[in-house]
Amino acid sequence: MTRSDTQVRRGATGRGAAGRPYDPAPGRRYAHLWGYDDSRFEFLDPRTVQLTGDRYPLAGAPLPHFMPFVEALLGVPVGPEHLQEGLPPAALPAPLRHEPFLAELRAAFPALRLEEDDEARLVHSHGQLSVDEIYRLLAGAVPERLVDLVVHPRGEDEVQALVRLADRHGVVLIPYGGGTNVSGALACPPHERRMIVSVDMRGMNRILEIDRANGWVVVEAGITGKELEARLEAEGLTSGQVPDSVELATVGGWIATNASGMKKNRYGNIEDAVLDAVLVTPRGQVRLTPVVPRSSVGIQAQRLAFGSEGGLGIVTRAVLQVWPLPAVLRYASFVFPDFEAGVRYLRDVQAAGIRPASIRLTNNTEFRLGQALGRAKRGTGALVSRLTTLFVTRVKGFDPERMVACTVVMEGSAAEVRQQARGLFGLLKQHGGLSGGPENGRRGYAVTFAIAYIRDFLNKLGIIGETLETSAPWSRILEITGAVETELRRSCAERGVAGRPYLSYRISQSYRAGVCIYFTMGFCARGLEDPVLTFHEIEHRLREVILEQGGSLSHHHGVGKIRQGFVQRVHSEASIRAVRALKRSLDPNDVFGAGNHAFGAPLAEAASEPPRPEGERVADGRP
Amino acid sequence: MTRSDTQVRRGATGRGAAGRPYDPAPGRRYAHLWGYDDSRFEFLDPRTVQLTGDRYPLAGAPLPHFMPFVEALLGVPVGPEHLQEGLPPAALPAPLRHEPFLAELRAAFPALRLEEDDEARLVHSHGQLSVDEIYRLLAGAVPERLVDLVVHPRGEDEVQALVRLADRHGVVLIPYGGGTNVSGALACPPHERRMIVSVDMRGMNRILEIDRANGWVVVEAGITGKELEARLEAEGLTSGQVPDSVELATVGGWIATNASGMKKNRYGNIEDAVLDAVLVTPRGQVRLTPVVPRSSVGIQAQRLAFGSEGGLGIVTRAVLQVWPLPAVLRYASFVFPDFEAGVRYLRDVQAAGIRPASIRLTNNTEFRLGQALGRAKRGTGALVSRLTTLFVTRVKGFDPERMVACTVVMEGSAAEVRQQARGLFGLLKQHGGLSGGPENGRRGYAVTFAIAYIRDFLNKLGIIGETLETSAPWSRILEITGAVETELRRSCAERGVAGRPYLSYRISQSYRAGVCIYFTMGFCARGLEDPVLTFHEIEHRLREVILEQGGSLSHHHGVGKIRQGFVQRVHSEASIRAVRALKRSLDPNDVFGAGNHAFGAPLAEAASEPPRPEGERVADGRP
Repeated sequence: MTRSDTQVRRGATGRGAAGRPYDPAPGRRYAHLWGYDDSRFEFLDPRTVQLTGDRYPLAGAPLPHFMPFVEALLGVPVGPEHLQEGLPPAALPAPLRHEPFLAELRAAFPALRLEEDDEARLVHSHGQLSVDEIYRLLAGAVPERLVDLVVHPRGEDEVQALVRLADRHGVVLIPYGGGTNVSGALACPPHERRMIVSVDMRGMNRILEIDRANGWVVVEAGITGKELEARLEAEGLTSGQVPDSVELATVGGWIATNASGMKKNRYGNIEDAVLDAVLVTPRGQVRLTPVVPRSSVGIQAQRLAFGSEGGLGIVTRAVLQVWPLPAVLRYASFVFPDFEAGVRYLRDVQAAGIRPASIRLTNNTEFRLGQALGRAKRGTGALVSRLTTLFVTRVKGFDPERMVACTVVMEGSAAEVRQQARGLFGLLKQHGGLSGGPENGRRGYAVTFAIAYIRDFLNKLGIIGETLETSAPWSRILEITGAVETELRRSCAERGVAGRPYLSYRISQSYRAGVCIYFTMGFCARGLEDPVLTFHEIEHRLREVILEQGGSLSHHHGVGKIRQGFVQRVHSEASIRAVRALKRSLDPNDVFGAGNHAFGAPLAEAASEPPRPEGERVADGRP
Repeated sequence: MTRSDTQVRRGATGRGAAGRPYDPAPGRRYAHLWGYDDSRFEFLDPRTVQLTGDRYPLAGAPLPHFMPFVEALLGVPVGPEHLQEGLPPAALPAPLRHEPFLAELRAAFPALRLEEDDEARLVHSHGQLSVDEIYRLLAGAVPERLVDLVVHPRGEDEVQALVRLADRHGVVLIPYGGGTNVSGALACPPHERRMIVSVDMRGMNRILEIDRANGWVVVEAGITGKELEARLEAEGLTSGQVPDSVELATVGGWIATNASGMKKNRYGNIEDAVLDAVLVTPRGQVRLTPVVPRSSVGIQAQRLAFGSEGGLGIVTRAVLQVWPLPAVLRYASFVFPDFEAGVRYLRDVQAAGIRPASIRLTNNTEFRLGQALGRAKRGTGALVSRLTTLFVTRVKGFDPERMVACTVVMEGSAAEVRQQARGLFGLLKQHGGLSGGPENGRRGYAVTFAIAYIRDFLNKLGIIGETLETSAPWSRILEITGAVETELRRSCAERGVAGRPYLSYRISQSYRAGVCIYFTMGFCARGLEDPVLTFHEIEHRLREVILEQGGSLSHHHGVGKIRQGFVQRVHSEASIRAVRALKRSLDPNDVFGAGNHAFGAPLAEAASEPPRPEGERVADGRP
């Protein structure tokens, strides 16, 4: 095996961009925030912010509308005077060292990169949960339990050896990809007494094979979406996998969380795109041969890697479908008088078999957020913008407080895109929609990648919030969004939250049977006795109303630890037992002891649980 | 729960057609053949055959070209003098009766229909494996072990009770759907000493709910494709699931074998179409709530029902996506100078994103089979047909011994179909293809449903054969078809088979990464010492060369018992162990003891197998 370090580094920083990726790097004060450290929101003056750097379209220009928008919505003053730059983390407990394990590991792989400094340990002990992880870290709090060591394997052989040693010595492994998890999946179980090793997979980022004839690539699972796409693009190819975290998240992480990308209409969700994956477990590799488009060969164990959330083993390799770069890429945007009209439009688009790579619908608040992130316009630009607004609101009678926007990406051959556009524009009128032009479509997608930076900025201003997503049948969309809106208001009022809560949402995916609804919620934490607890109570209630209204526990974020309390409500008892039996077969010593989803309860407990005959079945926990 | 018997019966016989479905019915001599007993091939004279009845487009007219075609290809005489009408089955061993089980079952459900007559037992002890099951039965042979009882549950509660009782009393259950399995999955393990009960699910054929808003129906899993489509059609809907066995096979059977329908481009394969399924196991129900389009909620145990082949439990219910009946349905057919040109065309169609509901490519032999099944043409029809042939062969220079045909079904809105047609016809010329007209397209699909009747007819004439399918990457298609052709010739010659073997094939499905290749092979069994053994040896060799050349073990037929010897070649050891652990969790007493795929080896053996640490991993059995 030969490899070029240069290639790795170049890939890791993404097309030679100036900023550093979010990689452990001592010396930075807040290494725990989202994304690249060249990109941060900051105040230019008490009312104006800007995004630093030149990485994003939004960056490098004053944004005069954003803070007024935030203040107006929250009904509380928000300014530089509220900025808390964050406290250094409390002193970290010394790492647990399992010396015989370490000695054997070092002997077997002398070149293996190991880290046990505070920063590396802390960075690898959390994901990007907004409140429980980032907000608490900003306040100087340190998780109860941290990883003791970070290992950076460079090949499948090293991963196999690591897993074998961990199994033999009773060491816990937690696979680490882009660190972008938002379900608490990377958090260490607080009472774990064994040594915990974070396995940072980002050194395993090679493309092992490009098979043009069959349209697939074989990749090491530590490759990030950004690296993957940059290298594929150079070959005239794309995977089309674009989750919001594409810059940082890895292919292995996508599989482990059963991820979804915004262009799934054209390129499929991760379970559609991955033809095969290798899962290295303490009891061998789960894999299928040969690689074929589809098969019927009994129960396919390797499908269990999807959604396994680090609990069965490490995904080391994946065979991923790729496509030629589309000949044509075209954006569009539409506005509708209200959310209901937009939903009807999306549904008719789906029913008519029109499949743009992506089609999204933002509610009024998210639409206005997009507007609020606009730059100060001067001259003709400002005039055109004002005239457009006047036309939409005065002439067409759209209510600025109700209107919503739909953004579209069309990809494919010229003929495909033409056909999609014809279908989309054709259906527009009967739903009372108006075209908003391609530029607004493009901007809509660009804003996506700034959301997490906004979250970090607001966090520092004492505004805490989180994204929350669900999969919902078409018939339940309005009930779910309505219930979340009502419950959030009620919950905040009940708990004495200052001002008003923020809630925006979008439909990010459409299917034959329904959609993914992606909420962003937040509120002012100032003055609350225990903001983190308040947040959890409220988030829990929102999740409950979503389930009550027929939404799923998660469309693509997964269960992790924060949604574990709901596992028995969605999975039947027999399902949970079966999944635990599987775990015992592949990982009897609970090496992969992160304890997410059905593996939350101590495994020993599950193991001793007597199987109940059908007749004595207890309620399967459904509402 | 109320139900209308009339409704059930009408459904079961399919839109009031005259013939009886293949349902246990004492008194018929050969109740074991495929399909409906009003539809059989028979000789009108020594050179002319016809398909009886009026069920199929092919039926009711003399087919003068078929026998000459068969003779020419096989190089042996085949006529009425070779017809063996079959022998009555040998005497059946008395059924095993577990009296306490039966007493409890009868007490709990006095109205439950039970059968233990010879015919019912024999019919439920096999599927439609051509040689091992049908050919042997025609020769009067009876399987070594038969089911002892046939039960016809009418609801989920009865299935649950049955499973509970079987588990308590040590009785084996084998779920039975349409009886169309072609992998030996319905065969009883020869050495099973427990009572074996066949659970005929066809009484559970209700549509429980039609949800138009979300585009799904909830069905009992015993509903056949034909019943389902007839009832959906009355509602203006379709599931679009059209496996070749659609008339007889059930939704539960589709799930258990991970089936694929010819229109998967539009409607998806079964794993895409089923949003949720309930699997009743001895240790409870495997299910997920609520029903949503897609989710990320940890490892999804209910996905394990797909491909479980009756080994974990009984699928009682499914939530299946449905679609409005297409506004436009349009057939097309194309001819190409040779198979290679046709494959290149299919690949370009796929790459261009053109997705007709179905597109298939037959090789030259299968193309000629289609021609040979034509009726005697008279007058203008005959003239046109001759002129067309002359044009294609003389003017265009197509070699009748090399040319191939592609048949297409386009479905959707007028705009969708127009777009598909434009794409398909647009690519035709650059691949040297010619349009063969819509009627030939329609005929191509009609022939599909006659194939199994032809098989039964040829079986009686001493010509034995089978279909054989595989999933293959694009780059391996020609290698696989070539290797199968060579190996079949070689194997037959080596074993002294009279004349020449028959081999035809078609590409029945296209994917981004490859295709499904569907072979039909056969040869003259006359004069062979042990035709069944010879057949098995040859079939095994063909399967081997397919695997050697990069094809899968099966695209949609499954593993069953006949492909069990290859399980360790495609699944890694850890995968097999994991699947067996799952089995022990859900069905520790091996109630679902049909012994298919990874459950072939006695479960006890698997249970006592010590898990091997990764370091002592044995080869994972790949070639």
